[in-house]
Amino acid sequence: MTHPASPDFTLAELAERLGAHLVGGDEARRMTGLATLKEAGPDQVAFVANRSYLKDLATTRAGAVLLHSKHADVCPVARLELDNPYLGYAQLSRLFDPSLAPPQGGVHPTAVVADDVAMGDRVEIGPNAVVEAGVELGDDVVIGAGCVIGAHTCIGAESRLHPNVTVSYGVVIGKRAILHSGCVIGADGFGFAHDGGRWHKIAQLGGVVLGDDVEVGSCSSIDRGALDDTVIGNDVKIDSQVQIAHNVRIGDHSALAGCVGIAGSTRVGRNCMLGGGVGLSGHLTICDGVQVTGMSLVTNSIHEPGVYSSGTGAMPNAQWRRNAVRFKQLDDIARRLVRLEKRDQEG
Amino acid sequence: MTHPASPDFTLAELAERLGAHLVGGDEARRMTGLATLKEAGPDQVAFVANRSYLKDLATTRAGAVLLHSKHADVCPVARLELDNPYLGYAQLSRLFDPSLAPPQGGVHPTAVVADDVAMGDRVEIGPNAVVEAGVELGDDVVIGAGCVIGAHTCIGAESRLHPNVTVSYGVVIGKRAILHSGCVIGADGFGFAHDGGRWHKIAQLGGVVLGDDVEVGSCSSIDRGALDDTVIGNDVKIDSQVQIAHNVRIGDHSALAGCVGIAGSTRVGRNCMLGGGVGLSGHLTICDGVQVTGMSLVTNSIHEPGVYSSGTGAMPNAQWRRNAVRFKQLDDIARRLVRLEKRDQEG
Amino acid sequence: MTHPASPDFTLAELAERLGAHLVGGDEARRMTGLATLKEAGPDQVAFVANRSYLKDLATTRAGAVLLHSKHADVCPVARLELDNPYLGYAQLSRLFDPSLAPPQGGVHPTAVVADDVAMGDRVEIGPNAVVEAGVELGDDVVIGAGCVIGAHTCIGAESRLHPNVTVSYGVVIGKRAILHSGCVIGADGFGFAHDGGRWHKIAQLGGVVLGDDVEVGSCSSIDRGALDDTVIGNDVKIDSQVQIAHNVRIGDHSALAGCVGIAGSTRVGRNCMLGGGVGLSGHLTICDGVQVTGMSLVTNSIHEPGVYSSGTGAMPNAQWRRNAVRFKQLDDIARRLVRLEKRDQEG
Repeated sequence: MTHPASPDFTLAELAERLGAHLVGGDEARRMTGLATLKEAGPDQVAFVANRSYLKDLATTRAGAVLLHSKHADVCPVARLELDNPYLGYAQLSRLFDPSLAPPQGGVHPTAVVADDVAMGDRVEIGPNAVVEAGVELGDDVVIGAGCVIGAHTCIGAESRLHPNVTVSYGVVIGKRAILHSGCVIGADGFGFAHDGGRWHKIAQLGGVVLGDDVEVGSCSSIDRGALDDTVIGNDVKIDSQVQIAHNVRIGDHSALAGCVGIAGSTRVGRNCMLGGGVGLSGHLTICDGVQVTGMSLVTNSIHEPGVYSSGTGAMPNAQWRRNAVRFKQLDDIARRLVRLEKRDQEG
Repeated sequence: MTHPASPDFTLAELAERLGAHLVGGDEARRMTGLATLKEAGPDQVAFVANRSYLKDLATTRAGAVLLHSKHADVCPVARLELDNPYLGYAQLSRLFDPSLAPPQGGVHPTAVVADDVAMGDRVEIGPNAVVEAGVELGDDVVIGAGCVIGAHTCIGAESRLHPNVTVSYGVVIGKRAILHSGCVIGADGFGFAHDGGRWHKIAQLGGVVLGDDVEVGSCSSIDRGALDDTVIGNDVKIDSQVQIAHNVRIGDHSALAGCVGIAGSTRVGRNCMLGGGVGLSGHLTICDGVQVTGMSLVTNSIHEPGVYSSGTGAMPNAQWRRNAVRFKQLDDIARRLVRLEKRDQEG
Repeated sequence: MTHPASPDFTLAELAERLGAHLVGGDEARRMTGLATLKEAGPDQVAFVANRSYLKDLATTRAGAVLLHSKHADVCPVARLELDNPYLGYAQLSRLFDPSLAPPQGGVHPTAVVADDVAMGDRVEIGPNAVVEAGVELGDDVVIGAGCVIGAHTCIGAESRLHPNVTVSYGVVIGKRAILHSGCVIGADGFGFAHDGGRWHKIAQLGGVVLGDDVEVGSCSSIDRGALDDTVIGNDVKIDSQVQIAHNVRIGDHSALAGCVGIAGSTRVGRNCMLGGGVGLSGHLTICDGVQVTGMSLVTNSIHEPGVYSSGTGAMPNAQWRRNAVRFKQLDDIARRLVRLEKRDQEG
């Protein structure tokens, strides 16, 4: 990629910011970025987050390596030692992120902002964004180009909406939210009464409430509630292409990978992890601490923490055809087996 | 959520609008909203749509309850009796919807509207919307902020496009459509000829036709046809994150839940219901009155109305692993069972 | 659909442009469009791309038919004979595409374009588009209405971004790209370190690189890399509603149908085809020439070209329930079968 300018730091500064122990390096040496052990040059920091990368450590050309002290002896260059190098990598990555410059503040002249919008300090509103009446924006909020923020929505301090995000009216978003481009918060949930051979729309009168530290990926949808709100807890991380239906509730610290779909009124506990493409039926309760592996379908509530799965992995098509056709005979197979077992016992 | 101001009605007005029978209440009492039996206060109407809510009826603090007369004796407060309380709820919800204010009309000064756009009465075009040449907009159409309407597209009366919807050129949309934010109507279908080791694009010359009373959820895609049009019937309801490929046809009154994907040229009948995440292969015919449960894969045409399913529900991962590995042996298991049965008969 | 004006061509011009042999028609006859054998009128060209359409050939009213010479004797009208009629259809479709008018060039007065944007010849930037600092746009690039192009992104010549596309900063897009409305290129990948009971964001410092001739469907997401780039090869075709996670690499000429999801760091080879709704787990390697059928889940690397599948097709719900419950007993069934076989051998 073609990078905008990013900041640089001395090794001493990095050690201080990470709470790491610098060993074997020049404190004044300036680091300009972060890279893998394989790719890093002498001005870049690399890291060892797990054993699988150890093989690249001995030959790295990095300016310094972030690692646990137990791997210190293999490291040929300066070390930044700390207990959780993966956390250190996360911290470092944010230091070097050129896109995380503090907001410059200011409303672009092409933005359309209602007169009564309440704005904190240093709020930045990008070109062609639209902010409707009664909206409240906390300190340091950034509204990207082309975003539309519906009437009476509140967005907490330090939240950042990337370009072309749409937030409907009356939505509440906590502090430090990150909403990626194309996501839609607060569109109508899917509710209709059937009568006389046709559908009658149920207006969606609830809202959406996002806690603090929520991230929502690109092109994801979180629908507004029918009567009560759809509620996303604190520190919930939602990937791209996710669909969250009306009145879903998701507990704090849960993470949803790409393409997850959650049907209406289902409650997901705290510290849950849903793999890519997982589907949850409506009106379920998923307890705290549940992990569901990719593309599984959950049609019943889950009351015990643990890992859950469904489906069958891919195999060569010819083999699959033979097995898939047998799946349709499975109940028959089971019954015939019981019959044989009986005859065996009898005979 | 933080609500914009919503309207209020007396109990007598509500009874009249719903065609309901008011029993035991003060006709002049004003109701300001709608809530569940549990949450409703004395200024709010609640409803009993099915037996599962009856347990909350005896203790409700609602100002009035919408219900069938057969549940009248359990109700401690004023009653609005009618035959289909769920339909009544749908009607009430629209009365109280603060977002359904009639359009104020007018083109926002930042909207870019071609000179020859034909506009009905009270058309409203939001900030930074773009309406290209030759577009026709019926009476009371609302085009939200940031929408782009391609050339020569027609949108029927009372249709409402929420912010940041994209409609391509030459699309036909019926009356009373509701298009939610981020949906895209009329992008190219996915068609290529393969020759000389590479793909050659097939221009998508067909259009998209939506009937009357169609709703399309946030971030959904309905692609334009290759030669003929993609056609969505009247009163078809489409949820968020849905993909409808080129030349699909969907019959009147069908409903598609979130994350459904329909491949090219498949025809879905009238009054069908596709659960969340359902996938239909291309070139199929699904007859009227078919329901498909969530995340099922349909690879063959369906000629009988009824409920169809595929897949396997989630189970604890350790149990799943044991069973999923057996799935790959299923044909072998079936053959071995036949062998045993033969030996049993012979011997 | 309501078409904008489209171009017309004489049969002689069409024969020349396609390298086809015109037989039995008036060279000067003007054709105004393309249609199916059934629908085509005397001013339209139809085509026979495969045997299944042959039944409609004898009765076609088309002005001319594109076909292989082996089908010439059945054709009642003028013929445009060539070796690959489906390729010919692709070429014809582009000739008649009213939306493919050459760009008129020019920056719309409502577009917000940074001073230092480097623009080739005939670049067209639509209403309310935003192009940030340091962007480079090649010759004949078209940026649709409402698009936002992040800082320092490069877009190759003849690329066309439909309205409301979002491209983040530092993205590299090759020549002749087609990006459909609502797609998002370069949003953050989904990366967090877990520590102290909460998530710590890993800034996504890599970019996205699209080769030449890439097409991306509506509402699809291609996320930026964590450290290295996410890389999409030349001539890769991506349908709508697709999610491509950080650091995925896709080889040249591969095609991904709608609703595909690919998790982080997976590498897909050249000339692969992924059916609708296919999911690939993270960190896999899929070799060249692999096809995966619709809605299959791939959790292991694939090292042999061929067709792969998973899942089970839909069946009537009552039958499915009986079989699906047996799936949970499958390991038990297999073990009991082994026991019976042993007893049979022993006895």
